[in-house]
Amino acid sequence: MSLKTGKEYLESLESLDVEAHVLGKKTDKLSEHGLVNPSRQAVAFTYEAAHRPESRDLMRAESHLCKAEVNRFTHLHRSPEDLINKVKMQRYCGAGTGCCFQRCVGMDAANAIFSSTYECDQKHGTKFHERFKEYWRWVQQEDLVVDGAMTDPKGDRSKRPKDQVDPDLFLRVKDRRDGGVVISGAKLHQTGMLNSHEILVMPTISLRPGEEAWAICCAVPIDAKGVKYIYGRQASDTRKLEALKLDVGNPLFGGQEVMTVFEDVFVPHERVFLDGQVDFAGMLVERFASYHRQSYGGCKVGVGDMLIGATALIARMNGVEKASHIGEKLVEMNHLNETLYACGLACSSQGWATPAGNYQVDLLLANVCKLNVTRFPYEMARLATDVAGGLLGTMPSAADLEDPETGPYILKYLAANPQYDVVDRIKVFRLIENLTVGAGAVAYLVESMHGAGPPAAQRIMIGRQAGMDQKIEAVKRLLSIP
Amino acid sequence: MSLKTGKEYLESLESLDVEAHVLGKKTDKLSEHGLVNPSRQAVAFTYEAAHRPESRDLMRAESHLCKAEVNRFTHLHRSPEDLINKVKMQRYCGAGTGCCFQRCVGMDAANAIFSSTYECDQKHGTKFHERFKEYWRWVQQEDLVVDGAMTDPKGDRSKRPKDQVDPDLFLRVKDRRDGGVVISGAKLHQTGMLNSHEILVMPTISLRPGEEAWAICCAVPIDAKGVKYIYGRQASDTRKLEALKLDVGNPLFGGQEVMTVFEDVFVPHERVFLDGQVDFAGMLVERFASYHRQSYGGCKVGVGDMLIGATALIARMNGVEKASHIGEKLVEMNHLNETLYACGLACSSQGWATPAGNYQVDLLLANVCKLNVTRFPYEMARLATDVAGGLLGTMPSAADLEDPETGPYILKYLAANPQYDVVDRIKVFRLIENLTVGAGAVAYLVESMHGAGPPAAQRIMIGRQAGMDQKIEAVKRLLSIP
Amino acid sequence: MSLKTGKEYLESLESLDVEAHVLGKKTDKLSEHGLVNPSRQAVAFTYEAAHRPESRDLMRAESHLCKAEVNRFTHLHRSPEDLINKVKMQRYCGAGTGCCFQRCVGMDAANAIFSSTYECDQKHGTKFHERFKEYWRWVQQEDLVVDGAMTDPKGDRSKRPKDQVDPDLFLRVKDRRDGGVVISGAKLHQTGMLNSHEILVMPTISLRPGEEAWAICCAVPIDAKGVKYIYGRQASDTRKLEALKLDVGNPLFGGQEVMTVFEDVFVPHERVFLDGQVDFAGMLVERFASYHRQSYGGCKVGVGDMLIGATALIARMNGVEKASHIGEKLVEMNHLNETLYACGLACSSQGWATPAGNYQVDLLLANVCKLNVTRFPYEMARLATDVAGGLLGTMPSAADLEDPETGPYILKYLAANPQYDVVDRIKVFRLIENLTVGAGAVAYLVESMHGAGPPAAQRIMIGRQAGMDQKIEAVKRLLSIP
Amino acid sequence: MSLKTGKEYLESLESLDVEAHVLGKKTDKLSEHGLVNPSRQAVAFTYEAAHRPESRDLMRAESHLCKAEVNRFTHLHRSPEDLINKVKMQRYCGAGTGCCFQRCVGMDAANAIFSSTYECDQKHGTKFHERFKEYWRWVQQEDLVVDGAMTDPKGDRSKRPKDQVDPDLFLRVKDRRDGGVVISGAKLHQTGMLNSHEILVMPTISLRPGEEAWAICCAVPIDAKGVKYIYGRQASDTRKLEALKLDVGNPLFGGQEVMTVFEDVFVPHERVFLDGQVDFAGMLVERFASYHRQSYGGCKVGVGDMLIGATALIARMNGVEKASHIGEKLVEMNHLNETLYACGLACSSQGWATPAGNYQVDLLLANVCKLNVTRFPYEMARLATDVAGGLLGTMPSAADLEDPETGPYILKYLAANPQYDVVDRIKVFRLIENLTVGAGAVAYLVESMHGAGPPAAQRIMIGRQAGMDQKIEAVKRLLSIP
Repeated sequence: MSLKTGKEYLESLESLDVEAHVLGKKTDKLSEHGLVNPSRQAVAFTYEAAHRPESRDLMRAESHLCKAEVNRFTHLHRSPEDLINKVKMQRYCGAGTGCCFQRCVGMDAANAIFSSTYECDQKHGTKFHERFKEYWRWVQQEDLVVDGAMTDPKGDRSKRPKDQVDPDLFLRVKDRRDGGVVISGAKLHQTGMLNSHEILVMPTISLRPGEEAWAICCAVPIDAKGVKYIYGRQASDTRKLEALKLDVGNPLFGGQEVMTVFEDVFVPHERVFLDGQVDFAGMLVERFASYHRQSYGGCKVGVGDMLIGATALIARMNGVEKASHIGEKLVEMNHLNETLYACGLACSSQGWATPAGNYQVDLLLANVCKLNVTRFPYEMARLATDVAGGLLGTMPSAADLEDPETGPYILKYLAANPQYDVVDRIKVFRLIENLTVGAGAVAYLVESMHGAGPPAAQRIMIGRQAGMDQKIEAVKRLLSIP
Repeated sequence: MSLKTGKEYLESLESLDVEAHVLGKKTDKLSEHGLVNPSRQAVAFTYEAAHRPESRDLMRAESHLCKAEVNRFTHLHRSPEDLINKVKMQRYCGAGTGCCFQRCVGMDAANAIFSSTYECDQKHGTKFHERFKEYWRWVQQEDLVVDGAMTDPKGDRSKRPKDQVDPDLFLRVKDRRDGGVVISGAKLHQTGMLNSHEILVMPTISLRPGEEAWAICCAVPIDAKGVKYIYGRQASDTRKLEALKLDVGNPLFGGQEVMTVFEDVFVPHERVFLDGQVDFAGMLVERFASYHRQSYGGCKVGVGDMLIGATALIARMNGVEKASHIGEKLVEMNHLNETLYACGLACSSQGWATPAGNYQVDLLLANVCKLNVTRFPYEMARLATDVAGGLLGTMPSAADLEDPETGPYILKYLAANPQYDVVDRIKVFRLIENLTVGAGAVAYLVESMHGAGPPAAQRIMIGRQAGMDQKIEAVKRLLSIP
Repeated sequence: MSLKTGKEYLESLESLDVEAHVLGKKTDKLSEHGLVNPSRQAVAFTYEAAHRPESRDLMRAESHLCKAEVNRFTHLHRSPEDLINKVKMQRYCGAGTGCCFQRCVGMDAANAIFSSTYECDQKHGTKFHERFKEYWRWVQQEDLVVDGAMTDPKGDRSKRPKDQVDPDLFLRVKDRRDGGVVISGAKLHQTGMLNSHEILVMPTISLRPGEEAWAICCAVPIDAKGVKYIYGRQASDTRKLEALKLDVGNPLFGGQEVMTVFEDVFVPHERVFLDGQVDFAGMLVERFASYHRQSYGGCKVGVGDMLIGATALIARMNGVEKASHIGEKLVEMNHLNETLYACGLACSSQGWATPAGNYQVDLLLANVCKLNVTRFPYEMARLATDVAGGLLGTMPSAADLEDPETGPYILKYLAANPQYDVVDRIKVFRLIENLTVGAGAVAYLVESMHGAGPPAAQRIMIGRQAGMDQKIEAVKRLLSIP
Repeated sequence: MSLKTGKEYLESLESLDVEAHVLGKKTDKLSEHGLVNPSRQAVAFTYEAAHRPESRDLMRAESHLCKAEVNRFTHLHRSPEDLINKVKMQRYCGAGTGCCFQRCVGMDAANAIFSSTYECDQKHGTKFHERFKEYWRWVQQEDLVVDGAMTDPKGDRSKRPKDQVDPDLFLRVKDRRDGGVVISGAKLHQTGMLNSHEILVMPTISLRPGEEAWAICCAVPIDAKGVKYIYGRQASDTRKLEALKLDVGNPLFGGQEVMTVFEDVFVPHERVFLDGQVDFAGMLVERFASYHRQSYGGCKVGVGDMLIGATALIARMNGVEKASHIGEKLVEMNHLNETLYACGLACSSQGWATPAGNYQVDLLLANVCKLNVTRFPYEMARLATDVAGGLLGTMPSAADLEDPETGPYILKYLAANPQYDVVDRIKVFRLIENLTVGAGAVAYLVESMHGAGPPAAQRIMIGRQAGMDQKIEAVKRLLSIP
């Protein structure tokens, strides 16, 4: 066993035979597809970083499962320090790619399943925990990308799963066969799905008695029979397919969101980690969500670093970096970004050992972290737009720049601070455009809002975890109110 | 003379012979170009509305110049009521098109030039005002679209025009010939330029003695010799060129931003309205900017109406419209939108008669209006994203919907509130995407920030106009401080 | 008839025999009471201003009731211009006194009752409108201060009036006698009550059949038998009773809030303007509330002017006025303050004629106005605290300044910019303290939140008035959704 | 040696002979003074808590100096865990007292001096570190309260110390005598000064060569000859002197701010820890400030807990706790409060060992923490005001409640949710008033703004520490910009 390099990771995907549809076409050579490749490169970054001297230590951890060093993205956290290092690793990768690098979901799912199966076994006498350990040891050893698949379509939001017109609107066990179960349904918004080797399917909500069919957690290979993938669109996505790449903004990396359909997919028992224990669906959801809300205090901060850097650079290129209001706006961007980071660190520092032995983040602070993530990146994008200037929305295309009739005019009239090359200035504008109203905004804004649950979900958790009754008691004590 | 219909307007553009470049290609049949046509339709709306019973009165005004009813977009405002009706008309058009309808700049330029030329003539004995009246009477009679061209490239922001490496970085009089002047330079961010018949060129900053060459205001036909146009890109712009239009979001209308180059363009004296009078450049800029900052209290509010409507509709389609937090977010969007409208109305209600007889908005309140426009649409976009859900960033393409292999899955799994058609739900998502991270966001977000000047420009004006000294005096009086 | 001067107003209060309790003592000589006098002076300002050359025109209006010039505080608005002038008058008085001048409630009540009684009479054949006209003509001729009394104690907020433990928790008609009704109950938070000549009692909520006893609107003289007054406390109120006045902050003016109890008060029929017509209670509340929400777009803006002036002055005294961040904060304060003013002007500019002929403000925009008032003064107070410095919370007392042992140290160590006198600097600090955490904060912060109803009330109205259905229809039209 | 109880602490103050002036009078029996006693009780809480079972462990730490358990308020932090426990202890005390408990400054000063003296000695061969260790060992053993005195009056902010009209405007060494130095000047805003046993004097800004006289750090006993104290006023402070205590709001605890004058005070060499080494003044200031900015992520969070509890309780008492908007506002208050806590924890978790061996917080994150503290408590106070209602500003006095004529009316009309006693409801209103516009607001709002430096100071530090150049480099790398 050894940790894969980026190249080895990319090669490992070649043998997978998946049914993927992109922009209305069934697509075989995913790696060569302009829409897919940048997102693969972003995942490859998480492999490559484990070999770079500057990041090697941060990217690796000692696994107690396989008694060896593993990529931290497959690690089961053993301490608050581990949780803090997770956040630092995520910030590092976000800042390195300027986008969503797509490898967190599986890590967060694994840690949630690891502890939940343990407690489920304790209560119900099931054997899920050992199964999962076996499975995850293999994942660590193979250094795989695993996608965590939680979000069901949910249909009519006012109805329970079994009251939907179509029971598949929540993924469910549709049938049972020798040696396993047959699942049917779909998972939406699957970040990085087609860059993964494996899928960890989880329930999407707390469940009640009578809803056993939906209480299913299991692992499915990415190329399992019956799984179909439909690639999601992003703003400006087809710029990646244009001949000239300048207008893409982020020249190397990108994200990926995939609608994933499970049409009667067979899962053998050894890959099933919850099967009808409705009382553990809620724990699984809550723990996964908390880990993933913590994650955003790292990854989005990293993307924020890139946005701040681009904003500071364009200010210099525009020749306005000495204006006091420009400086204040950059400080404000940093302040907001570091506040998010503080939340990621804080919920990690207060991590606690689950009965299974891995570490869970503080639930209250992780939700606070994510709720801030639904706000501050928007303000940062607004500030970046302010500092950069109107060219963000009006700049001619790369093709016009190449055109000998128009190119010289563009070079002549987009010249600003003479210390900087005009084309470099255009690159920075396109990167900021990417992050604020382009493909990157899907991850930096839309996903910041809805990934790991929308703000309303965090607010419910904050309300529950805030200890209101103790606070009221303290007031009563101070005021001698009986 | 009669007011053109939308159709007549579109036909009137056909005869114009312009040198336009779009995505790297010289383009002759602009009307048929997928990127250009929606923006033409948006301008056509402003003509058509003058004939619709519901909007006819609002869209028309009695001109004192040509003693006839004109489209309000060519009107010289004669009262605060006129200024208020301007804002209402803009809100109406924004709400009707869901985008920038591009016809305000010329109206705002004309009103600023009308009053400034009068005062310039009073001081300098020039004859610009009569010339301009003659010109504008023709514009009104022909019911033309005029683009106001103010924003110079500006090069190195720390240098004056004459200290730039290239004197053309601010548009200037480069030469003089019998009967006119020759201008050279460029104007950036020209909204709706290629949908116009005429261009009103104005200086971009206050000027000082020694900078006479840059103190030029004049009218140029859109197809004047030497003028070249390079079409600006917008997020997701090429979706408009795709075979299926569903992913565009706004199926009918759009905006347009054009880099406009003036290469030795001859302008006859009768079309020159300022020529070297540096002491009037600042007045012209300030008045135009104030009108245009007022404008945003109408047009962006209209687009906001569309965004609010789409957000409310998607909430119903998702089946969550009864959740209290959804209702609160919609109220908040309305509150912010109406605050912008209030600012637009307020600066109009306090309009004052210029010596030339047309009405100018209150400078302080117009700047306050625009400064709010640099903030609230961003928060509204954030709230819309919150309410709508993650599909904004992950939904498969129209082509996948058409594909018989994937279409049924999309229809099955994107079903929500059964009262609504799934494809209709997709349409609403695409409209919200358009306005928040797509082509519409260029007008709704980037232009809200930078159109009519960035927030720092408004802050300077607010600082100047706020009457700080009187406020300090009032404090001293109350406290008996000498 | 003539408009009273400030002095005449103050004298006119002397003959009133009221039962007033202040800080636990029945108090006869209210005018001489340190807690009451500043608030009387603030009301007197509204009289005096009607005689000052600079404000005379603004403070007066031609009454159609008594065919004479009246103080605008008793005016029934006849046009949008009147409504705008109302707001300007309020800003003027707020800026002149730096506090709540307490005379708006009656003006707003009168305008609401004027139009509601007219419509009630039309529907029910009652005679309230003529009665009210008769009454108000007298008020105008005598130039009286009238307090509008709306807010009932309301007891258990989850219960209707008749389900309360005590039916008096909503003021009601308890009995009927020859020639009139007997009312019982209380009105809380009565601003300026003890500086008034008359009280206009109104219902506090919309009412339903079966709740006729609570549908009472009537006028009561301030010294009517059975009315009792208990003076409310404000932060730092007793500084007004100290020997040295420096620590008060506002040396001349202040506010007043009074709990008013009606114990079996007889009201003759000619002073009754609603009596059991439950279907008009809601209209009365809504119209009064809208006028009063408009008012805040004037009066609080005026107090804001004073706070801005004080903040700018302390910055100069501290010697930091040239720091760019100080300038930015002052601009921001002005921006927020002018946004409130814009809302006040806007809802006025869109005023509409009621069937009775007076003008009502735009309901939506008036609620938007007030909702902003529940936010921006808080941010302005925060910014003022930021600019001013920590002495706001730590400065020694006026007595220490007078003390020969400590005074010299205070003068020595509180010296800053040598152009300014140290005691003057202390005065400005105390004024800012007054407005942000002292007695003035009751009006500038607490009342900005709850006066004319808390933010939740405005949100409900905004939700109702925002035309959501039309907005949804517009989206459907654009997207061809049936 | 043993840790003092609250009672022992209070007794220990009795023997101190200080020259204190309160409200214009020299005051001997400070403990019995109504204005002083509540603030002493707050400090006593920090002693008492070290003996309470529930808090004992948190309040104590093992000192490496004196090899014994000490009160954590005198601890030199030995690990990130220590730094985290410091924040937890501060939150505990804030929540227990509902005010500023005044014992943090000395702890923060000691930690900063401990590490700075070490590095100064290393560079300059001075002996300050050993001296300080000696001194601090005694403080720990005696379990003393030490006030850190940093803030000089600063006079004209645009001038350096030596350019002031009066050199004492920055505290300085005025003279030298055998065995020590003579200092002269003042320290403003001294929180809890008169509840302390000792003072640690520090410079207030970075210093330059030529400013040696101002580079003085030393310890002075609270009752040293020549030190004079002038008590600062707070909003509503004299309510503490009234016969009835109900109106005070916080019945047990309070804060204290003291202007402290040093008139030719002799300090022996063994109490001098910096003397002319201008190059270490900045380090001392920066380290102290960072510790103290961290502190606010604990103490203000605790006070926030009290405010949240009071707001939740008043909602129940008002009978509105089930309204969805009330719940949302409470969640928002918790969210903001926990964000502050997260920042306090985060800068602690990233603490680093100084060369002297104690731990310093992360400078960037500590500044981010404090900058948020200058914002969120204001919004929390606003939300508390919103939820509580207008009675916050209008409620009659305790004396009126006692008065048999008015008391029954108050009890009758302030009844709300019948499950709660009316007087208890009044108590809660008074507590919220205390924290938002009363004496408690000085600590919760004014001090949150200016304590440990105003926001502009934090912004400068954030700008410096944010690593802008690395961020720009990352962008250049991604975009292949040389």
